[in-house]
Amino acid sequence: MGRGGEGAVDMEEENMAAWLVGINTLKIQPFKLPPLGPHDVRVQMKAVGICGSDVHYLKTMSCAGFVVKEPMVIGHECAGVISEVGSEVKSLVVGDRVALEPGISCLCCNYCKGGRYNLCPDMKFFATPPVHGSLANQINHPAELCFKLPDNVNLEEGAMCEPLSVGIHACRRANVGPETNVLIMGAGPIGLVTMLAARAFGARRIVIVDVDDHRLRVAMSLGADGVVVVSPNIQGVDEDVAQIHKTMCADIDVTFDCAGFSKTMSTALNATRAGGKVCLVGMGHNEMTVPLTPAAAREVDIVGIFRYKDTWPLCIEFLRTGKIDVKPLITHRFGFSQQEVEEAFEVSARGSTAIKVMFNL
Amino acid sequence: MGRGGEGAVDMEEENMAAWLVGINTLKIQPFKLPPLGPHDVRVQMKAVGICGSDVHYLKTMSCAGFVVKEPMVIGHECAGVISEVGSEVKSLVVGDRVALEPGISCLCCNYCKGGRYNLCPDMKFFATPPVHGSLANQINHPAELCFKLPDNVNLEEGAMCEPLSVGIHACRRANVGPETNVLIMGAGPIGLVTMLAARAFGARRIVIVDVDDHRLRVAMSLGADGVVVVSPNIQGVDEDVAQIHKTMCADIDVTFDCAGFSKTMSTALNATRAGGKVCLVGMGHNEMTVPLTPAAAREVDIVGIFRYKDTWPLCIEFLRTGKIDVKPLITHRFGFSQQEVEEAFEVSARGSTAIKVMFNL
Amino acid sequence: MGRGGEGAVDMEEENMAAWLVGINTLKIQPFKLPPLGPHDVRVQMKAVGICGSDVHYLKTMSCAGFVVKEPMVIGHECAGVISEVGSEVKSLVVGDRVALEPGISCLCCNYCKGGRYNLCPDMKFFATPPVHGSLANQINHPAELCFKLPDNVNLEEGAMCEPLSVGIHACRRANVGPETNVLIMGAGPIGLVTMLAARAFGARRIVIVDVDDHRLRVAMSLGADGVVVVSPNIQGVDEDVAQIHKTMCADIDVTFDCAGFSKTMSTALNATRAGGKVCLVGMGHNEMTVPLTPAAAREVDIVGIFRYKDTWPLCIEFLRTGKIDVKPLITHRFGFSQQEVEEAFEVSARGSTAIKVMFNL
Amino acid sequence: MGRGGEGAVDMEEENMAAWLVGINTLKIQPFKLPPLGPHDVRVQMKAVGICGSDVHYLKTMSCAGFVVKEPMVIGHECAGVISEVGSEVKSLVVGDRVALEPGISCLCCNYCKGGRYNLCPDMKFFATPPVHGSLANQINHPAELCFKLPDNVNLEEGAMCEPLSVGIHACRRANVGPETNVLIMGAGPIGLVTMLAARAFGARRIVIVDVDDHRLRVAMSLGADGVVVVSPNIQGVDEDVAQIHKTMCADIDVTFDCAGFSKTMSTALNATRAGGKVCLVGMGHNEMTVPLTPAAAREVDIVGIFRYKDTWPLCIEFLRTGKIDVKPLITHRFGFSQQEVEEAFEVSARGSTAIKVMFNL
Repeated sequence: MGRGGEGAVDMEEENMAAWLVGINTLKIQPFKLPPLGPHDVRVQMKAVGICGSDVHYLKTMSCAGFVVKEPMVIGHECAGVISEVGSEVKSLVVGDRVALEPGISCLCCNYCKGGRYNLCPDMKFFATPPVHGSLANQINHPAELCFKLPDNVNLEEGAMCEPLSVGIHACRRANVGPETNVLIMGAGPIGLVTMLAARAFGARRIVIVDVDDHRLRVAMSLGADGVVVVSPNIQGVDEDVAQIHKTMCADIDVTFDCAGFSKTMSTALNATRAGGKVCLVGMGHNEMTVPLTPAAAREVDIVGIFRYKDTWPLCIEFLRTGKIDVKPLITHRFGFSQQEVEEAFEVSARGSTAIKVMFNL
Repeated sequence: MGRGGEGAVDMEEENMAAWLVGINTLKIQPFKLPPLGPHDVRVQMKAVGICGSDVHYLKTMSCAGFVVKEPMVIGHECAGVISEVGSEVKSLVVGDRVALEPGISCLCCNYCKGGRYNLCPDMKFFATPPVHGSLANQINHPAELCFKLPDNVNLEEGAMCEPLSVGIHACRRANVGPETNVLIMGAGPIGLVTMLAARAFGARRIVIVDVDDHRLRVAMSLGADGVVVVSPNIQGVDEDVAQIHKTMCADIDVTFDCAGFSKTMSTALNATRAGGKVCLVGMGHNEMTVPLTPAAAREVDIVGIFRYKDTWPLCIEFLRTGKIDVKPLITHRFGFSQQEVEEAFEVSARGSTAIKVMFNL
Repeated sequence: MGRGGEGAVDMEEENMAAWLVGINTLKIQPFKLPPLGPHDVRVQMKAVGICGSDVHYLKTMSCAGFVVKEPMVIGHECAGVISEVGSEVKSLVVGDRVALEPGISCLCCNYCKGGRYNLCPDMKFFATPPVHGSLANQINHPAELCFKLPDNVNLEEGAMCEPLSVGIHACRRANVGPETNVLIMGAGPIGLVTMLAARAFGARRIVIVDVDDHRLRVAMSLGADGVVVVSPNIQGVDEDVAQIHKTMCADIDVTFDCAGFSKTMSTALNATRAGGKVCLVGMGHNEMTVPLTPAAAREVDIVGIFRYKDTWPLCIEFLRTGKIDVKPLITHRFGFSQQEVEEAFEVSARGSTAIKVMFNL
Repeated sequence: MGRGGEGAVDMEEENMAAWLVGINTLKIQPFKLPPLGPHDVRVQMKAVGICGSDVHYLKTMSCAGFVVKEPMVIGHECAGVISEVGSEVKSLVVGDRVALEPGISCLCCNYCKGGRYNLCPDMKFFATPPVHGSLANQINHPAELCFKLPDNVNLEEGAMCEPLSVGIHACRRANVGPETNVLIMGAGPIGLVTMLAARAFGARRIVIVDVDDHRLRVAMSLGADGVVVVSPNIQGVDEDVAQIHKTMCADIDVTFDCAGFSKTMSTALNATRAGGKVCLVGMGHNEMTVPLTPAAAREVDIVGIFRYKDTWPLCIEFLRTGKIDVKPLITHRFGFSQQEVEEAFEVSARGSTAIKVMFNL
């Protein structure tokens, strides 16, 4: 496999990426790849999903405290085909279909050495400024973060490993298993992948809550045991809790708040049994007004999550065995032209019927 | 040891208790003991401390959702001498000096059988309505909840096992050990016992924060490694965090919020390192406005505590070996007369220089 | 519901039990029930399985250090129908079909209060001398240890909760989940229930090993992913490990030794990956000669199990939802006559094709 | 700071190391250092201790399955002074006094990323063939594995971090804390550092056992609460257990077998309370004959250790604060000449009164 040379020039010519250049402004422009490191692979990107954070960056040039100061390639939910391998790479060959874990941790800090590399302060993560993302024809990535897909898992499913990883990390942190009754606040994309993950971890019973009736019908079709429609206004926590308890018919051991607002978190804290756990997954508001003290006094613990760690092998196993089917989550598909990229982000931002919007490159 | 008979009549005549009969109204009145059960002991009470919850009940006839509807004997931090033992009691004899664990759990529910009896929904707990407390000349109690004191631990120290248990349970839940840097918000009685417990669990470095300079001087004299005086107003979380970090000179692994207000909890969440724990111990306000999402996104977990479980043996061990000295916490002592009881509660409620107010009966 | 009276006399007349009266001697003889306690229920026994320990008691009058000194009713895997309830029982009514958890713990010791009641030193357990077992027309038992069966779970399945509980407790102790590759040494009844439990806990891949080809065919039909036939002789550990690794095609995270001999345990220790767990379930020999040091130096931990705790609700849930099907394990059924009891024990002791031998009373 | 040049020539001239060249044959010979990597430091070695494994290699050219096939520099317990730093090193400067963690893990495998880097299959560890050790005038080592010593911790104490790390890792794996009664089998160097570590983790009561009365007197002087002299012969486990229980006067929660023979492990298993832990630290014999089944049936778990992970900061903290004093363990000191090296190994191998033999280079 040549590196540099005439072929490389060709590759670079065709290498375009979706650049975030200003508020509400994405431009498909050339993206020059650095030389391939000895432990890296070059991936021809085939499927890239749009995440809520991508939309947030597009609308505000910032997300969760990170600010985009220079034009930045967007995208981080992705899978593709290996087009070149670095000189030291032994685990992969050209032509392998891979899903990409987007974060490169330092490996050396206390978090990395202690088994929590997702908290590494020096993490380099796709489309988290100033690191470029992966909505591009090609990118370079460390081989150890590219996970080969089995024959029966397609590239779109590979790209779905990223959002699914959030659900899996949440289920691990909340210790979901066959004895766990699970409540999920919010039936958006993250609520749904968390539901699928909880099901795959063997959750006993899953009830899911949203303000949107359509989303809940989707949740039912994907395997929820019960749903509760709630009103968006801040009053009515007690009524919602009563309705949830009626629907669950059992103590709630773990609640995932996949929305992240004062009301959803208040409902989560009050609905969960003494000694249970609330896992805050959604990032609606930074600051919330919530009944923390009564929850603490029932030893309802609150655990947060930041991305995920070591989830790709398990995602792929769940997809391979059919324990999780993510295909119904992909509601819209677009090609990789200027017009389609703009349209895709609009569809994703509207959110009404879109769950996951996927680019096929 | 006779049960009933002439002696028993005498005992009942002298059996007086401090009854909470209305807001700000405590009355020393006769308290009739039920017959002694086969597994119970009768304890001649010798030392009873005043807890913040006692003061709260006195001022409002309620605390943490419990409402006093009938006159109720108050008090639950106590130690005394066994005056009679039930027919089946083998572990104790008359004359034994014991500290009393105040809560009688059902033993049979899932919480009890699962090792978390403090969460038992059928708990009968001293001075939690409608259960009477222990500020009385004598009370009956299950023998298995009366822990014999070693010769070098006095009865006041025995009574201090109750507040100390809160600190020990908090340290266990937050997993404090020799590698843990500990921040404590609030240097009141609970903050101080938590500090003593953290020290005994081997905490690496302890910084304690309060608005009251005097309390912090006490904390330093009891072994804090550093203190920070903060202002009570709600602004200034960032400045407080900066000051705390400067004083700790190291990552904060565990923060105990022993106050329980929006500001203390905000400071706790922001000051604690990624992957650390905040343990909410104080019960200032039910509802708080706090930056939950950024804390969750750094995987700072929030654990609450409800009372304690299985802490008396460890308390007594810490007191026996001198790893903890609670005697400096006892700042005021009173006898058991109507006038002294009233005065004692006033001193405790003022709180300025009082840490623990103790009755000697 | 009357207690005592004419009906009660009738019940006692018909109350017969299988008494172990000497080596290889079981006699069906009258068994007088004590008065029903306020928290007890009387159960008309309907299904009772034979356990390996029952056979061991029959052959030797002892098992695992317990010695039968007085005639003792045998049996502890059982389910039946409530015929009478104690005065304080609210959770059950006459006619309820229940599975019985056989051990009555003291509730008060450190083990009970600490959440490990199976280690209670004062446990009273069916058919563990001097406590009588449950192979009888009727027995009394605490209501809290009788678990109501759903409509779609029959009484034989109810009786199977007992052996299944061993597998569930083992899986909990070894922390089996969707990322766990499981090796099981021994495809007897306990190996098979452990396999079913591991499957229900979501185990990724399960390989099972035995000397008996027939048993392994049964294991395959019940859902094993792979099997290895090994020779019974003590040599050949390395060859067996190689064969097992080839069959697993992945690191082994957890091994259950459901046999309990030097060779099975040596194979278990050597086959399990560094940092994995070996759970010793079978009780073949007390003393074993095994390569402990190399296993310790790879941090392969060894965990044991003693019976189970808090497993009936989960068993019943697995049976109700069909995640576990125990019916294929019941290979032989007998009535409750002197002749059939003798024959049943003979069949169970031979073991060749018998998995679970069940009495229908 | 020059790299190469005249100074470097001088350094290499004086750079001698202790080479293991054959059974019972150590030779001080020149040792050529490779060029310093950008993330490495060069350390002028000042204190190197002799470990039991060094002696084992010397006597047999092998240890724990590793075989010395080429001449190899020996030694791995060491501290020294930085003489040069790589171009990317920011954490250390020339002149810093440092203790060295001897193992370089790959950082990328599942063990490394999962927080158990001590199990890394690609570990490069001082004096584990084919990797050279550190008994040399100078060596190169990654800066991140060199830990700066505080002013009040000397270089010999720095070298003692290595054996102490074994004790600390053992205490962490066995979860020693203020409620743990600890039994230690064997009062050799590893038994003693485990005792010191257990004390620093707050162990409630520590009893230590040996066949050698002198060693036990040393253990008492270092803080054991009780000692038991046992006979070396294989009989007498029950008597030893009885004597140990009498000396402990309490349930034994954790036993460290720092010898590693059938008898010590049998005693450990039988002496430990139900639900307790036995941690196998010593590596006496590979294969042992032990009563595993009765231990498993009391849920006495067996955990092993392999070296340690992330222990240097805690070791140094314990030394700095005086919670651990390792100086009394250093019984013999030698210079770094051919004659002294030979003599030092002889003294260490005899073992009678020697605990730790230290080279001062």
